[in-house]
Amino acid sequence: MASPVNPPRGMRDLLPAEKAKREDALSVIRTVYRGHGFDEIEAPALEDYDRLHAGLGGDNEKLSFSVLKRGIGPEQWQAADDVPAIADLGLRYDLTVPLARFYATNQAALPPVFRAVQIGPVWRAERPQKGRYRQFVQCDIDIVGEPGPIAELELIGATAAALDALGLEGASIRINDRRILTRLLSTWGVAADAGSAALITIDKLDKIGVDGVVAELAQQGVPVDGLAEAFGGLAAADWGLAVDPPAWLDVEAYTDLLALKDALPEVELVFDPTLVRGMGYYTGTIFEIAHPSSTSSLGGGGRYDGMIGRFLGREVPAVGFSIGFERIVDLLPDRVSGATATALLHDGDVPAGVLLAAKRQAQEDGGRVRLERARKNRRAQLDALAADGFTRFGVVTAEGLGDLRPLA
Amino acid sequence: MASPVNPPRGMRDLLPAEKAKREDALSVIRTVYRGHGFDEIEAPALEDYDRLHAGLGGDNEKLSFSVLKRGIGPEQWQAADDVPAIADLGLRYDLTVPLARFYATNQAALPPVFRAVQIGPVWRAERPQKGRYRQFVQCDIDIVGEPGPIAELELIGATAAALDALGLEGASIRINDRRILTRLLSTWGVAADAGSAALITIDKLDKIGVDGVVAELAQQGVPVDGLAEAFGGLAAADWGLAVDPPAWLDVEAYTDLLALKDALPEVELVFDPTLVRGMGYYTGTIFEIAHPSSTSSLGGGGRYDGMIGRFLGREVPAVGFSIGFERIVDLLPDRVSGATATALLHDGDVPAGVLLAAKRQAQEDGGRVRLERARKNRRAQLDALAADGFTRFGVVTAEGLGDLRPLA
Repeated sequence: MASPVNPPRGMRDLLPAEKAKREDALSVIRTVYRGHGFDEIEAPALEDYDRLHAGLGGDNEKLSFSVLKRGIGPEQWQAADDVPAIADLGLRYDLTVPLARFYATNQAALPPVFRAVQIGPVWRAERPQKGRYRQFVQCDIDIVGEPGPIAELELIGATAAALDALGLEGASIRINDRRILTRLLSTWGVAADAGSAALITIDKLDKIGVDGVVAELAQQGVPVDGLAEAFGGLAAADWGLAVDPPAWLDVEAYTDLLALKDALPEVELVFDPTLVRGMGYYTGTIFEIAHPSSTSSLGGGGRYDGMIGRFLGREVPAVGFSIGFERIVDLLPDRVSGATATALLHDGDVPAGVLLAAKRQAQEDGGRVRLERARKNRRAQLDALAADGFTRFGVVTAEGLGDLRPLA
Repeated sequence: MASPVNPPRGMRDLLPAEKAKREDALSVIRTVYRGHGFDEIEAPALEDYDRLHAGLGGDNEKLSFSVLKRGIGPEQWQAADDVPAIADLGLRYDLTVPLARFYATNQAALPPVFRAVQIGPVWRAERPQKGRYRQFVQCDIDIVGEPGPIAELELIGATAAALDALGLEGASIRINDRRILTRLLSTWGVAADAGSAALITIDKLDKIGVDGVVAELAQQGVPVDGLAEAFGGLAAADWGLAVDPPAWLDVEAYTDLLALKDALPEVELVFDPTLVRGMGYYTGTIFEIAHPSSTSSLGGGGRYDGMIGRFLGREVPAVGFSIGFERIVDLLPDRVSGATATALLHDGDVPAGVLLAAKRQAQEDGGRVRLERARKNRRAQLDALAADGFTRFGVVTAEGLGDLRPLA
């Protein structure tokens, strides 16, 4: 027996049923985003090493795959002391750094407010574990060049419409603003330079609970008096807080969030003052898709006004929303197309011309047609075809195609 | 001014119009191939270095990008003497080597005759030149497990249908069989071990002409007496040859080709005994798409029975057809969708909620809706929107959306 042959560690093959389901979902997403005025673009999968390591990718920079310089031999790499000396390109680990590069390159050819869709694989050297892959698809929309809240409204509206069109029910969108977090921390007496450690802690609320968060904050020197109660109240915060704003609330930022909620009555928008989002580049609103079936989020995003212009050398307002395609596609029901699909069973001795003519005849009604050698166990074969979405079958003999019969 | 920012050398960005045209074309191709019974699959973009350098990729192996091993530092690479010691993965340079690996991995889950579609990027370190990119899309169909001519018929039929559905008129498919080339060479007294050099020469016929080919063959020791005439006759060969087969013709192989032609009356199938196809792995029929607008082929393929089973350790019959997606998409007319698309012009001071309500109102008719800040030069803005496929426009003020008017 030959030795087992596998895809590279942490990567996977997509078999026909899974691939069809994914392509169907992507087609739905593309149609919704396009209808909402977003234009799809594509940047190469590779970017220069320096751009991928410019500090915009957070922890993901450390997970980046680098590509060996072409044409170098042992002499060069034996004399090299750091990665860029032997690997000048890398595989993208997200679609945001490439968007910043793309925008800097092509700005003159893009509309003043640019609504981008990007769909494609990214690569990260994650520690292999269930449900985490080293190659996976990201699906991002971004609005670049619009400082006002219409950008947030269009992004959240389009994302909610895409989830609806996919048939994913019960999703809600948690929303917060970095300004609210900043004020919250200052109310607690957290110095500005200690803020990011406190935010990382607050981000763990789902995992370690209020007590865990309070304990970790105490270790960071945040005064603990009344913190558990204050924090418990935060976790239960809802839109009603607006009636009687507590001292920790940045009322201006909160009023902006309330206006978003009022403009999007069809979206289940939940105010969550403990929502952090990991990336350091967010500057304003942040949001995340929650779903009852999953403890982790199904996507998220926010405003990151400082970053897109980084390679341009000036600030450009931007908001982005990335849906967690891999998680969402796992939640969708298996693909049931309902369209006509015909299986044509035949023996090995039927002439090729007869087979092709039978295939043409079955194709006249449209749909999918597959020729398949008849197996001894007809029942098992028909069951397998039905499971694969075929709706009818026929038998082809040297005389031609017999009657087409429905598949149970 | 900031310094210019570009994608990596030899790679390119796809702007909205180009990306939309490509996605539309891919959607047409996917629909046709699926209708013809092919199932799309996806393998990771990366494969193990050893598989990419197992001798199945021909010259493309030399153009392969290798990926630096994760977690190694200068100590490891400074002690390394060859590429695999520091780079154990590589980016795929075609979709055929990954298919062989995929089939070996997943054979038990696939039907006995497996019709695969693969669409995705491949990477080659080509010398940058006009129209050649280091990342480009390949689009392959393959039938694995079918030794008979029905495989060729289904592949050629599906490919011709895809070209038709794309609206590419005037394409023809040149066809030959490796057995015909083998017999041709033996008639000329070419020893079996010198055959591949002679084939490489014959493959240059388009570029260096009959005289060039004859001269180069002479250098290889092929007897030149009457060769120019014989070769001139070959170049003009057509299906009529069957009536009076010349001595060099492998009649059995030719009869097989004739049967393919008879079964595919709707396809412009041209017999070309000088067609070679570069890859060494072909074992039977070979074919190539020709189009009057292009001197190079728009795709090709053939039977390669020895290769797919290579990682399985046994022979598996296989035929493949790869369309040259990048060249074909360049020949297609620019995308004209005809669908409703609405541009909504507004000033900067219109409240976000009013803008979103106007967008919703315009979306009720379906199609694409884009909000856009009104520019001073209204005429130029409307012209640009029309060029981008928008069919109507409206103006949004604080009072709401005005009348929608057609865009010229």
